[in-house]
Amino acid sequence: MMPAPLPDLLIDPVVRAALLEDLGRAGDITAAACVPAGTRMTARFAVRRAGRVAGLDCARLAIAALDPTASFKVRISDGRDAPAGGVLAEVEADARSLLSAERVALNLLGRLSGVATATAAYARAIEGTGARITCTRKTTPGLRALEKYAVRCGGGINHRYGLDDAILIKDNHIVASGGIGPALERARAAAGHLVRIEIEVDTLAQLDEALPYGPDVIMLDNFSLDDLRAAVARAKGRAILEASGGVTLATARAIAETGVDVISSGALTHSSPVLDIGLDAD
Amino acid sequence: MMPAPLPDLLIDPVVRAALLEDLGRAGDITAAACVPAGTRMTARFAVRRAGRVAGLDCARLAIAALDPTASFKVRISDGRDAPAGGVLAEVEADARSLLSAERVALNLLGRLSGVATATAAYARAIEGTGARITCTRKTTPGLRALEKYAVRCGGGINHRYGLDDAILIKDNHIVASGGIGPALERARAAAGHLVRIEIEVDTLAQLDEALPYGPDVIMLDNFSLDDLRAAVARAKGRAILEASGGVTLATARAIAETGVDVISSGALTHSSPVLDIGLDAD
Amino acid sequence: MMPAPLPDLLIDPVVRAALLEDLGRAGDITAAACVPAGTRMTARFAVRRAGRVAGLDCARLAIAALDPTASFKVRISDGRDAPAGGVLAEVEADARSLLSAERVALNLLGRLSGVATATAAYARAIEGTGARITCTRKTTPGLRALEKYAVRCGGGINHRYGLDDAILIKDNHIVASGGIGPALERARAAAGHLVRIEIEVDTLAQLDEALPYGPDVIMLDNFSLDDLRAAVARAKGRAILEASGGVTLATARAIAETGVDVISSGALTHSSPVLDIGLDAD
Amino acid sequence: MMPAPLPDLLIDPVVRAALLEDLGRAGDITAAACVPAGTRMTARFAVRRAGRVAGLDCARLAIAALDPTASFKVRISDGRDAPAGGVLAEVEADARSLLSAERVALNLLGRLSGVATATAAYARAIEGTGARITCTRKTTPGLRALEKYAVRCGGGINHRYGLDDAILIKDNHIVASGGIGPALERARAAAGHLVRIEIEVDTLAQLDEALPYGPDVIMLDNFSLDDLRAAVARAKGRAILEASGGVTLATARAIAETGVDVISSGALTHSSPVLDIGLDAD
Amino acid sequence: MMPAPLPDLLIDPVVRAALLEDLGRAGDITAAACVPAGTRMTARFAVRRAGRVAGLDCARLAIAALDPTASFKVRISDGRDAPAGGVLAEVEADARSLLSAERVALNLLGRLSGVATATAAYARAIEGTGARITCTRKTTPGLRALEKYAVRCGGGINHRYGLDDAILIKDNHIVASGGIGPALERARAAAGHLVRIEIEVDTLAQLDEALPYGPDVIMLDNFSLDDLRAAVARAKGRAILEASGGVTLATARAIAETGVDVISSGALTHSSPVLDIGLDAD
Amino acid sequence: MMPAPLPDLLIDPVVRAALLEDLGRAGDITAAACVPAGTRMTARFAVRRAGRVAGLDCARLAIAALDPTASFKVRISDGRDAPAGGVLAEVEADARSLLSAERVALNLLGRLSGVATATAAYARAIEGTGARITCTRKTTPGLRALEKYAVRCGGGINHRYGLDDAILIKDNHIVASGGIGPALERARAAAGHLVRIEIEVDTLAQLDEALPYGPDVIMLDNFSLDDLRAAVARAKGRAILEASGGVTLATARAIAETGVDVISSGALTHSSPVLDIGLDAD
Repeated sequence: MMPAPLPDLLIDPVVRAALLEDLGRAGDITAAACVPAGTRMTARFAVRRAGRVAGLDCARLAIAALDPTASFKVRISDGRDAPAGGVLAEVEADARSLLSAERVALNLLGRLSGVATATAAYARAIEGTGARITCTRKTTPGLRALEKYAVRCGGGINHRYGLDDAILIKDNHIVASGGIGPALERARAAAGHLVRIEIEVDTLAQLDEALPYGPDVIMLDNFSLDDLRAAVARAKGRAILEASGGVTLATARAIAETGVDVISSGALTHSSPVLDIGLDAD
Repeated sequence: MMPAPLPDLLIDPVVRAALLEDLGRAGDITAAACVPAGTRMTARFAVRRAGRVAGLDCARLAIAALDPTASFKVRISDGRDAPAGGVLAEVEADARSLLSAERVALNLLGRLSGVATATAAYARAIEGTGARITCTRKTTPGLRALEKYAVRCGGGINHRYGLDDAILIKDNHIVASGGIGPALERARAAAGHLVRIEIEVDTLAQLDEALPYGPDVIMLDNFSLDDLRAAVARAKGRAILEASGGVTLATARAIAETGVDVISSGALTHSSPVLDIGLDAD
Repeated sequence: MMPAPLPDLLIDPVVRAALLEDLGRAGDITAAACVPAGTRMTARFAVRRAGRVAGLDCARLAIAALDPTASFKVRISDGRDAPAGGVLAEVEADARSLLSAERVALNLLGRLSGVATATAAYARAIEGTGARITCTRKTTPGLRALEKYAVRCGGGINHRYGLDDAILIKDNHIVASGGIGPALERARAAAGHLVRIEIEVDTLAQLDEALPYGPDVIMLDNFSLDDLRAAVARAKGRAILEASGGVTLATARAIAETGVDVISSGALTHSSPVLDIGLDAD
Repeated sequence: MMPAPLPDLLIDPVVRAALLEDLGRAGDITAAACVPAGTRMTARFAVRRAGRVAGLDCARLAIAALDPTASFKVRISDGRDAPAGGVLAEVEADARSLLSAERVALNLLGRLSGVATATAAYARAIEGTGARITCTRKTTPGLRALEKYAVRCGGGINHRYGLDDAILIKDNHIVASGGIGPALERARAAAGHLVRIEIEVDTLAQLDEALPYGPDVIMLDNFSLDDLRAAVARAKGRAILEASGGVTLATARAIAETGVDVISSGALTHSSPVLDIGLDAD
Repeated sequence: MMPAPLPDLLIDPVVRAALLEDLGRAGDITAAACVPAGTRMTARFAVRRAGRVAGLDCARLAIAALDPTASFKVRISDGRDAPAGGVLAEVEADARSLLSAERVALNLLGRLSGVATATAAYARAIEGTGARITCTRKTTPGLRALEKYAVRCGGGINHRYGLDDAILIKDNHIVASGGIGPALERARAAAGHLVRIEIEVDTLAQLDEALPYGPDVIMLDNFSLDDLRAAVARAKGRAILEASGGVTLATARAIAETGVDVISSGALTHSSPVLDIGLDAD
Repeated sequence: MMPAPLPDLLIDPVVRAALLEDLGRAGDITAAACVPAGTRMTARFAVRRAGRVAGLDCARLAIAALDPTASFKVRISDGRDAPAGGVLAEVEADARSLLSAERVALNLLGRLSGVATATAAYARAIEGTGARITCTRKTTPGLRALEKYAVRCGGGINHRYGLDDAILIKDNHIVASGGIGPALERARAAAGHLVRIEIEVDTLAQLDEALPYGPDVIMLDNFSLDDLRAAVARAKGRAILEASGGVTLATARAIAETGVDVISSGALTHSSPVLDIGLDAD
């Protein structure tokens, strides 16, 4: 299922801020000097290497912000795989505007497609195991909504969006609460009825300690494959089991085959290289 | 020379926006539930792998935004190399505030240190050649000032900051102006006396065409090592020569040894993995 | 358990915007004309009628925004009941600043205490039944975080915070999806593992249709008491049951005694009268 | 006379902020999951109980912000009375967009119509007496312009808009100035020639003290009906007389019949229940 | 009487926006390069020519925004006359911060003192006549509150602050309403009881037409001295009379001696040269 | 060559902020009261005195912000000279909207045309000498991009845009660095390869001291004509020479004839009177 696009209302402020950051106080002085007023231009967004597309709305809105009359035709849409050389979109616009918007459009499109491409690689690696790949809160400041969307384009699901939409109890919280039991009891008492509660455990013993309190999700942090299997054996179906910690593309399938429900990776958003995309003028 | 820090006034809006993005509409519901009011906490920012530090002001401001009484003591400052396990800073703060600010602090600190670490690797690779490493405008939207600062912490210099502070004439501008000569003439006529003009050339023939018009900088895009040497032979001292295009850590030194003045790399800011940094509670 | 306060970082922008709205382009021209510069003033925030307190941080921040040297001592804190005439806080500040901040402080404090007071009345009405009272998304635009906090101060819990932190399937979604089953399947496929799914049903037949798909929460909308009891009989423990629709203080206890888990009321936030609070100068 | 609409420029930022508050970081995840892309929808805004309409522009702009192609046809416009069940407007729009905007549209429309309906009740109660009903600064933070507009839709007039557009001297200002006379003299000396000056008095003696200084308006605070009549007898025509303090719908007419010019009520904006309005899909 | 200062809350956003405009994306690269970290500096704000001071809070806040530890001691305060060479304030601060803030501080201080100085010249010119000098809405976009304050520092009073705090009926409004009488009747019916109404008239005949409708203020636009005298003869005391149109310092006294109450001049804010002020390091 | 227009994206936020500043909390209460809804209006922007035009996009955007259906036809465009009485643009719009936008449109258009007109006078004065006129950073806070654009419309060039796009070493920097040589060395070491470096010198001796370090630009501050000639004799061609300090229209040509490259004047932006422009209804 293709992920639903984000509303423009959520994307446009990011795009406009990026344009203002780039235009500075005088605008694009190169285009102003070298491109005659009124020149029109057609061009194509093309990927240099194969990858999963995400972020075409960013490119569209960047160009529209400088030239509302521009046309932008999508050829390979968000959530689909593009072959090397594939054309993602064709654009026709005022030349000055298009050249001024190009870098912002590519910066966002390349970054989001990079996240989607990395996610898709993980999703393929664990295909058929029943496990799903998810991101974390290790996102780029200011771009969380967009990067989480890119994860969905890559076939992953999203972890919580922030500190306020789910409870995730970690070691420091456990210490501060006086133990796993008290922490989970405090959490349940404070949480609304639409809030899920997750707890991070480092050992099977902690897992056993947590289970009776009925957390919705248990994060198995840096568990060995054997321990993951043991955890699945005793907890599967009683809570959603999330494997985390140092997951790589090489280890993902083995982890998934232990039977965990979800595998989380911060690297999807904090360390994926961009997908190399260019804007080729006709 | 250590780079001068950015004024807090430039950093604080980014940090606060990042915190608001993470706190959402209800704040940190886990800390609120599990950490008793008034609990204090001490902790250390420590790097997991060796790297170049950049962004400690972001971490300090993130914590201060939630607890103005927090103390933050820097141990290894921006622009310095930290060994694996090295402690960058020690912090004492309200526990709820510190746990709520932790992720934003690490997201910024890790990302900027990642950029600085990558830059430092390039700077070391070309050490002694006389060439300098520089970034591009392929930065994360919203973080340009910070990422450019991280490049300086890594020992690099900065390319232009945006579309408005220098002229960079590329192929599309040349076409629109009717050739290299007209493009450079239009640029000089429009530019103020404090604006440098750079032109991108793809061949030695284009280099020869550009030189008589006296550009301040010439970008030699995707030149072979032989062509770079030829370009240096005929243009060194007449313009600053910048090599660009597909530079890697493996190829940087050979490029530098051709005699070019500057080597630019977009990957420094768009594809550097984060430096793994954690916050360890005492 | 007293609810944890919101971080100042979430409240301060609301307070400052409210002050700027009131100060307009010239500031408080009455205080400027009539109060000599440098005059100090002490005063007390006092409730005219008994009620539950919420919003003292708003009052504190409003005064601090105009006089950072002001002192503000809380006497009856958020989440506690104040008797008629009770003093909530004592303040000492520059007189011009205090008089200029007074209206904004009272507007926020009175409104939030009004929400908390109404919530507390419901909470008391259903005490001992095991049911909990919750709000909705029918909040004042711009004040959602604060009003949801006020509900917590009143002893209620919070429904979802927005459109993005939980799934709530209503009649139009069911129609668009092609039925209750498809809607729940689509929801589960799209949702991350930390997202709860709720569905609104209008009849017992719809309840039966929904149960096999395992929604986390089922909203029983405008059910009669008999139907609520029937719903509890067949679904209690399989999903969290939420009664909604035209709940009043008079009917709340009977609804709670049917055995539902949660009772929701939009009126808590959209129609509660303010709690009458004044600032009395000494 | 129907009140002139506010310019969209004043309303749109409020509407967009409200949408962003509701959409959060991921947008409407229910509509995204359950409503197929491209589905269109028609629906009607209908009042459940009779009332005075205010705020249709808010509803229109909320929908337009998510679907610029939406059509919005007003049937009963702002400032008019709608019967129970009356259709205020008909809308055709993208289904996801409409469902996502619905709550924000209703929150604003219901609140403003609630204020207008309450105001209209007062206006009717005092009809024919020559007195007019007015609001105060006890408005919802962030919504002052809109709520003041709603008062106009209800047939009321507006009190001052903020601290800067008129002078209103209260007890603390009198004390700080050294008396009623000095306060009024200071006010007149400081005020521009387009600023009206009002003073609040608690007794007939204070009224007598104020009159010689020629205030434009005198607020008679918590006067008995007898005292109001006495005040009118000696001051009518020399200053505009405003009755304030604990006015209710039950007491308004008697107050108006004393001959005062204006009756002010904070409850119009701080405690009016919303007008119950729904969006009914076809 | 010295004008009351504006609250910092109104000034600080203007100052910070100005600093961000000047610091751009990299901050002050000259101070960063040339001034060693930690250097302290003392300096004095001194006027080059005599003038009326306004705007010292802007200078103070600009420096504090970059160095919260800076000291700023006022020697000649806003609203007072400074002799040529007079020291307005002494400052001690971090040298980099002070040099970075200098231009913004001077740009605001010089501009506002320029407005105050021009206003003071008019105020002196008409001293003893009973007339007062006032500004218009011809202010610098973004600086209205500050420039209006500077007019007060110059001894003038303020005209309306914007389109919403008083009614000013001009020729186009008269035409649209169908005449002076209908315009004034429409205005009075729509206006709240704290709103003054002014009408602009071009002839004595129009003045006669307006008087029976009781406008609070009448603007006599481009009247000859004789006509001003005639206007005063028939309308003084029935409305506040404001002379406007092409007033200069040379003509102001003669106009004032006709007996008008107020003289307005757009040039005070739109065309006053700055007062030359420098920052002299010790 | 006509200067390229700024992108609307850079202008629109300034225009909208100016409109919101003027509309305040209730909008244009005069137009609302006096102009019937739906009235259309045609009018012309006409200059009262001859001058150079700059800022028509501001006027267009101000009107469009209130009436998106308005038409705006330019007759004498930015960068051209208008004779007294000349019509700059014709507009057709909703009458209320046009009257509400009029003042903001004129405030910006008049100010920018004032800057352009002053610049054009200088440009004409030095025509044929080879020197160019330039502005400084002494601009109106918030309007730097627009005022720099107006300088270009007047035929001038722009000095640096802020503290971050070029290095300008002044006396305090020289002192802090320990002399002219160290200052220039520090600057060159820190600067990127696209940053020009300028140094301000007060004497010929300082000029001699600076030249060997190869600054791009040398500002000759308050030099006599003789000293300017001497400076040109020894430095022309080795650095761009900028004369600054107390330049007036009367002295500009003599300065230009000394052979300097650039003449800078802060008065262009900080003290130019507005160009008198009106909006004449048909």
